[in-house]
Amino acid sequence: MKEFDTIAAVATSIGEGGISIIRVSGNDALKITKKIFVGKNDRKLDNIKSYTMRYGFIVDCDGNKIDEVIISFMKGPRSFTAEDTIEINCHGGVVVTNNILNEVIRAGARLAEPGEFTKRAFLNGRIDLSQAEAVIDIIRAKTEISARSALQQSEGIISKEINELRAHLLGIIASIEATVDYPEDELEEVTADIATRKSSNILMEINRLLQSADEGKILREGITTTLVGKPNVGKSSLLNTILKETRAIVTDVPGTTRDIIEEYINFKGIPIKLIDTAGIRETEDVVERIGVEKSRQMIEMADLVLFVLDNSRPIDEEDKEIFEYIKPKNYLVIINKIDLDKEMDISELDIEKSRIIKTSIKGEVGIDKIKQRIEEMFFGGKIDYSDVYVTNNRHKQALIRAKESMRHAIDALSVTLAIDLASIDLRDAWRHLGEITGDTLEEDIIDKIFAEFCLGK
Amino acid sequence: MKEFDTIAAVATSIGEGGISIIRVSGNDALKITKKIFVGKNDRKLDNIKSYTMRYGFIVDCDGNKIDEVIISFMKGPRSFTAEDTIEINCHGGVVVTNNILNEVIRAGARLAEPGEFTKRAFLNGRIDLSQAEAVIDIIRAKTEISARSALQQSEGIISKEINELRAHLLGIIASIEATVDYPEDELEEVTADIATRKSSNILMEINRLLQSADEGKILREGITTTLVGKPNVGKSSLLNTILKETRAIVTDVPGTTRDIIEEYINFKGIPIKLIDTAGIRETEDVVERIGVEKSRQMIEMADLVLFVLDNSRPIDEEDKEIFEYIKPKNYLVIINKIDLDKEMDISELDIEKSRIIKTSIKGEVGIDKIKQRIEEMFFGGKIDYSDVYVTNNRHKQALIRAKESMRHAIDALSVTLAIDLASIDLRDAWRHLGEITGDTLEEDIIDKIFAEFCLGK
Repeated sequence: MKEFDTIAAVATSIGEGGISIIRVSGNDALKITKKIFVGKNDRKLDNIKSYTMRYGFIVDCDGNKIDEVIISFMKGPRSFTAEDTIEINCHGGVVVTNNILNEVIRAGARLAEPGEFTKRAFLNGRIDLSQAEAVIDIIRAKTEISARSALQQSEGIISKEINELRAHLLGIIASIEATVDYPEDELEEVTADIATRKSSNILMEINRLLQSADEGKILREGITTTLVGKPNVGKSSLLNTILKETRAIVTDVPGTTRDIIEEYINFKGIPIKLIDTAGIRETEDVVERIGVEKSRQMIEMADLVLFVLDNSRPIDEEDKEIFEYIKPKNYLVIINKIDLDKEMDISELDIEKSRIIKTSIKGEVGIDKIKQRIEEMFFGGKIDYSDVYVTNNRHKQALIRAKESMRHAIDALSVTLAIDLASIDLRDAWRHLGEITGDTLEEDIIDKIFAEFCLGK
Repeated sequence: MKEFDTIAAVATSIGEGGISIIRVSGNDALKITKKIFVGKNDRKLDNIKSYTMRYGFIVDCDGNKIDEVIISFMKGPRSFTAEDTIEINCHGGVVVTNNILNEVIRAGARLAEPGEFTKRAFLNGRIDLSQAEAVIDIIRAKTEISARSALQQSEGIISKEINELRAHLLGIIASIEATVDYPEDELEEVTADIATRKSSNILMEINRLLQSADEGKILREGITTTLVGKPNVGKSSLLNTILKETRAIVTDVPGTTRDIIEEYINFKGIPIKLIDTAGIRETEDVVERIGVEKSRQMIEMADLVLFVLDNSRPIDEEDKEIFEYIKPKNYLVIINKIDLDKEMDISELDIEKSRIIKTSIKGEVGIDKIKQRIEEMFFGGKIDYSDVYVTNNRHKQALIRAKESMRHAIDALSVTLAIDLASIDLRDAWRHLGEITGDTLEEDIIDKIFAEFCLGK
């Protein structure tokens, strides 16, 4: 284990609550805490055992009590950071929590940077980079399914696959290099054949992982969705119906003003992230209010567009214009108010049949069909928990680079004379895959990844 | 210990953080957690010792992992609630935290009401009502001094005094009743004399406590302060200077919309709560913008008014009008811009000399004097940590009622024949004092007090 200084931060969400936790990690965690802790009946922390707790008070340098606390101790490497870790559970007030943190700093700890606890778990070799990233995904997960998928990754489900591929790659590289070093007979050709077959298998595996990336992105980030349609076609009713059934999660977007909020709804476990929902709910009149141009921008940003039409009104030029923007996207056309007389000729728009859903939102007809179709569109009808999903865009990019290198390698292998060139490409692929687990990533990039974590994690 | 059902809630502040805690309290806390916990190497919770922790996973009814957790166990009565308590430390995500809470509920716990954990600590006799109320004050404290004062109360500093007074009262009552039951010689007169002397002492103690209530209220709630003055006199500069030096704490007011925020600044440990600060900072032009009438309302609400004048401008009629509203309040007149030529004749306003402070906010002259004067005005120059402060208005009201009863008792005692009537008043005083510690408070009032606590506490 490497030697680091001892760091501290508030590990719970900041705000008023019953309990806050100040986490202290590093070789001096216990030594530092001892200086500011007074146990019940003056019991010291000297003989505290790992995975036990002590009740007492945090005191300042003059011995004044700051708060009543429970201290828990986890001796490294059996802790989150793999270092000696103290967690101070105190009353969940903003002032009192910060006061304790200040005392911990005064006693010799350094304020942790965002993500630094998780970074230590990584640098100490307890978890790899993809597992570290999954920790943040668990915290940010918007539905149970996203949380579950992130938990699987935090347990190393991606790493396992990547490590296997990399081990195979090393095998191929070794056999090629052995052949190049001792060129005999037709060994090169035999090696090239075997290497090609093995490389193709690896390429297939990479492709399989890449194919999961679209679904994986949705698991992690949700389906960015926008509702488009004229005033009074039923957009806000649709939204309200969905919101009524699901528990919507609204979060502040970190680093932005309070005005920008993200609203997530849970659609059969798929997180649906709504764009400009406040606007939609405030007024039915999105298209008119913000104009066709703005609607177009909203459509542009969306992974999914729900285009709501009114069965009792004929299609007009504006509908046609909007539909042209929607066509290249993932979309569903919702023909609402089927309880009213039909005045619409849907054939005026060139819509794939499977994308049309007829509803009466007022009568709660067809809502389930919308959900079902979304699930089909994005997960082919069901989410398979046993599958590995590549959820992280950084991993996807690394896989794309690895795929390119594998293709070059296979090309090179087809020219037997270039078998040593193939080994360079295979090494590249090996390196690109290692970026996912962090094995072959440069320090400054790793720093950047952790810097995006929240404070206290 | 009474038998209650087992309750659960998220004990940390809701939001994204490194760690969340789900607290489970009651006789079945361990039994319920066992159902949903899978330890490392399948280690069960059966033999878990008090004040120890276990690493593992929370699983749903199908055995799917929900999150990686650390469980801590505190066996009653050595826990916050004095009941068996389990704390589940999980990843600090909103979804994952709620999922675990849901599993705990499904496994047999009931969702705790706001304040119910603290209420149990009270009902189980671990703490009295004033200590329970102090727990919330610790959480809501806006400065170190408020937090420290709340911590002292949570340790029973008020209760101790109240209980002593009540014991003395019972002594007096007993001696009076003994005399009334066995009327002999001039015993009544002797008893009345002694009772009067003892009662006067108690009344003095009650008065002493009541005298601390103004300062106590400030410790708990802060000094509600408003800045008043014409445009461009330097109000926002003053505010910015203060904000630069202190760490301002901004909190959402629970139960209201996001628009209403409370801003606290820390002024030598005294929490200053600013009214309508956003408005003041947005524009210099408060008086003009909101009108004299609105300024008057703001002055009305304030514990302290800072009236800022410009040294380089003559006093006008509006200044005089505003000053009339301010005069009955606690106020300071800040004559700003003393670096400019004097055009003002302050004698036009009838201001006590000690309330005038000359400043050049731009030149950072006089700011410390403002702070010093505020401290002098509200704490006579210093806050004495060894003093007991009555911080809670409910306690103050009970003390006022007790004081009234004591006065009646002393009056009754002066008429020797009415000595038995005095005992009724003394019993009233005893009961009113008991309302502070909760000994003599009715259940529905107690319920109401706890209902104002936050969830998870």
